Amino acid sequence: MNALFAPSLNIALTHYPVVNKNGDTIASAVTNLDLHDIARAARTYGLRRFYVITPLEDQQRLIKRIVDHWVCGVGGKTNPARREALALIGICDDIQGAVEDIRQETGLTPNVVVTCARPGPARISFASFREKLAAGKPHLLVLGTAWGLSETLITTADYVLEPIQGGTDYNHLSVRCAAAIMLDRLLGTP
Amino acid sequence: MNALFAPSLNIALTHYPVVNKNGDTIASAVTNLDLHDIARAARTYGLRRFYVITPLEDQQRLIKRIVDHWVCGVGGKTNPARREALALIGICDDIQGAVEDIRQETGLTPNVVVTCARPGPARISFASFREKLAAGKPHLLVLGTAWGLSETLITTADYVLEPIQGGTDYNHLSVRCAAAIMLDRLLGTP
Repeated sequence: MNALFAPSLNIALTHYPVVNKNGDTIASAVTNLDLHDIARAARTYGLRRFYVITPLEDQQRLIKRIVDHWVCGVGGKTNPARREALALIGICDDIQGAVEDIRQETGLTPNVVVTCARPGPARISFASFREKLAAGKPHLLVLGTAWGLSETLITTADYVLEPIQGGTDYNHLSVRCAAAIMLDRLLGTP
Repeated sequence: MNALFAPSLNIALTHYPVVNKNGDTIASAVTNLDLHDIARAARTYGLRRFYVITPLEDQQRLIKRIVDHWVCGVGGKTNPARREALALIGICDDIQGAVEDIRQETGLTPNVVVTCARPGPARISFASFREKLAAGKPHLLVLGTAWGLSETLITTADYVLEPIQGGTDYNHLSVRCAAAIMLDRLLGTP
């Protein structure tokens, strides 16, 4: 059981600032299945919170409507397991908002760990990140939608996590699958 | 690099026979994002083939239309990485059809390894399965949609894989995320 360790981890799915295919900074649209899949993985691995990040008010309303359906509405009555998962979702304008929420609720400032499918210098390894979580310090693991997090967001993080290696030169996992693999590497009990 | 080992693994996503919430055997509907997510994960970990299993002709036509769009149509022109992934998809009526396809193409009969979120007796561990793959014998990893594979299919398999443990009592991962975690545990290079 990771009961002692897991609440130190939070995850954030970012819709702004992310880049598109051409490298331009954009705000991406929320994908319903991202919310469900990442919430279910977050609940499986005992995370404290799953933050969905977008500054767009209409997108925030959409997320709230989806979450309410499963947490307070008929969705949760039909499928209580789904309620447990989506109840982990919090909505924030930006990463700083999620950091502030963690600070207010736990009294501790989390380390921000961003993800990037490209290799590069000074990446933190999964093994090293796993040790930090086991030591109890709160962390916020940040994933990007579209073609990934914008460089400005990456450079301001405390750590950049090493990319997932699958033994081939192909690095185009969906953000849903990448999140699940990361949580398993950080908190799974093989 | 797993280049020598990975082609021994194939994955199958089953839409019949699976069970619904009440335990009745049903044929589930194909989900577009299952095809994309599992194909991308299969390509990332260098799998030989991703079989989508359904005996329903209209569902097979739908799968073929999706795959054609990305492999032969404009989808693949716009996004060549997605073409590489969806090109791994094969369509079969049942698991036996996938086994036969592997036998015909490789000359070897694969072991069939089914998955089940419930714990039970005589499960094969991820570590032991990983060793078998490294030894080069072909395997077909079978996942179920809806509420999972029917018991009749589970009992006829060569092995039942142990469930994914996330350190909590919650075992409701999406099939997309479960597939990705399994491939990472079997072929990932942390």
